[in-house]
Amino acid sequence: MSTFSLHTLGCGSAKPSLRHNPSSTVLNIREKLFMIDCGEGTQLEFQRQRLKFSRLNNIFLTHLHGDHCLGLPGLISTLALLNKGGCLTIHTFKPGVKIFKKIFNYFCQDRPYEVIFNEIEPEEALIYEDNSITVRTVPLNHRLPDVGFIFEEKPKQRHIIREMVDFYKVPIAQLSSIKGGNPFIREDGTIIPNEILTRPATPSIRYAHISDTAYMPYLAEKIGAVDLLYHETTYLNEHLADAVQRGHSTAAQAAMTARDAGAKQLLTGHYSSRYKDESLFVKEAREIFENSILNKEGLKIALD
Amino acid sequence: MSTFSLHTLGCGSAKPSLRHNPSSTVLNIREKLFMIDCGEGTQLEFQRQRLKFSRLNNIFLTHLHGDHCLGLPGLISTLALLNKGGCLTIHTFKPGVKIFKKIFNYFCQDRPYEVIFNEIEPEEALIYEDNSITVRTVPLNHRLPDVGFIFEEKPKQRHIIREMVDFYKVPIAQLSSIKGGNPFIREDGTIIPNEILTRPATPSIRYAHISDTAYMPYLAEKIGAVDLLYHETTYLNEHLADAVQRGHSTAAQAAMTARDAGAKQLLTGHYSSRYKDESLFVKEAREIFENSILNKEGLKIALD
Repeated sequence: MSTFSLHTLGCGSAKPSLRHNPSSTVLNIREKLFMIDCGEGTQLEFQRQRLKFSRLNNIFLTHLHGDHCLGLPGLISTLALLNKGGCLTIHTFKPGVKIFKKIFNYFCQDRPYEVIFNEIEPEEALIYEDNSITVRTVPLNHRLPDVGFIFEEKPKQRHIIREMVDFYKVPIAQLSSIKGGNPFIREDGTIIPNEILTRPATPSIRYAHISDTAYMPYLAEKIGAVDLLYHETTYLNEHLADAVQRGHSTAAQAAMTARDAGAKQLLTGHYSSRYKDESLFVKEAREIFENSILNKEGLKIALD
Repeated sequence: MSTFSLHTLGCGSAKPSLRHNPSSTVLNIREKLFMIDCGEGTQLEFQRQRLKFSRLNNIFLTHLHGDHCLGLPGLISTLALLNKGGCLTIHTFKPGVKIFKKIFNYFCQDRPYEVIFNEIEPEEALIYEDNSITVRTVPLNHRLPDVGFIFEEKPKQRHIIREMVDFYKVPIAQLSSIKGGNPFIREDGTIIPNEILTRPATPSIRYAHISDTAYMPYLAEKIGAVDLLYHETTYLNEHLADAVQRGHSTAAQAAMTARDAGAKQLLTGHYSSRYKDESLFVKEAREIFENSILNKEGLKIALD
């Protein structure tokens, strides 16, 4: 079973179409679900993909355009109807806190769970941390405040080489320290270097979610080498002028960012409804960055 | 082509399921579209059924539970993206006016059309009138203020009997008066009764939309003889206690209201997601009222 997977719930843009839901993505990291954006209809697609409401405790909003957040009131109501316990944290800008508090207080007053707002800013910051991951924001360039999110696993423990640990008779009580990279010091004072006892830790997975943004040449550097970069590709390069005017990116621009960041894979999305043949998005991206994936609702990518 | 038809966009209840959308119904009356309730996802179902956004100028909200109105912000945004002109009137209670004004002003600021709020009360009243129809409210009994809507065509003109009009040499200028039911008075003073010159007008169509409500024995009298009664049937009679507690009706109760009102047909809906076999709703209703129809998304009923 995967310990870090991405699920696409919606990859259309603002004008609704029958081919796509508006924006929403779920990351399943060790059975904790992290939702990024929540367009109208997200709760139904969530059910369709058999994700578990009980495991959803964090929702991150990239920005406050309706196609990225208008599914939130319905979802909040449904979680109440399903008798969710505990709490749900919504990470959003100050105006989002204000308007959603009002909406929830009107439409979802009787909640058996707590809604916590984590007010974020359109700047680089660490906004979430638990035992296994951190989430950081990077500011984007759209028509209103907007951030991307970088999810990163914390450094993992090194792998014990069972035969060597047995050979040097390392006490069980010291295994945790050894996994942490420390050497083993024997009773006679001799030092067994860690590299003899362990193999390197599994690399930490990094995922970057870059929602609506105009092309930013310096963004790649902030993203760095990620296992997967979701980057909006609202337009094809033939409509570059529209992209610039509307604060969006073309598939080619997303591919440049993926290439310059040193990403392993690029995932497209947020397609303008004007295009009938969406394979053109990956075709355009692959001319610059080969490992480009065509996004669609129901897509699941395991990153481990 | 029908001049008065009903289109079901959603007939599920509050807990979302993959089988139904939340509440929404559209009446197409002479190519004007009247929407009743607007649950999440309504705008997509509207498109799926190839209804025309440009013909939608009135939305009536029965009450302010989320499953009846949380599709409104997305729809309002989409109409702006589609460059709708003119105006759109939303008929809702005062708290609805207040909360939706806030939501629209945040998420749908730049609208090329005007949103007008018609503040209604949970009482019997005429709330809408145009050349061909009137809409009246009837108060219901739910967990918060709630109304049903009665749509009624205005009395139509009588049909001219061409041969008789020719025989009596009725001048063209008087035909409108004759269609209105007046006698024809000849130059010599003799009176030709209207019944000789015309056939009765086509009866006016009446439709009643009774959303969430506990059973009300006196409601039937207020509804009267309608061509079609939509009446919520959230539960089967075996769960009558739940119906009473939650302010809902069973299929049998809806059927009693249809029978007592003298309705021609009953349309079920707002099914609780607990029932897998929804044919039981009409089965139960038909034991009391034979002309009961099982509702589903995509259902279209022509009433003329």
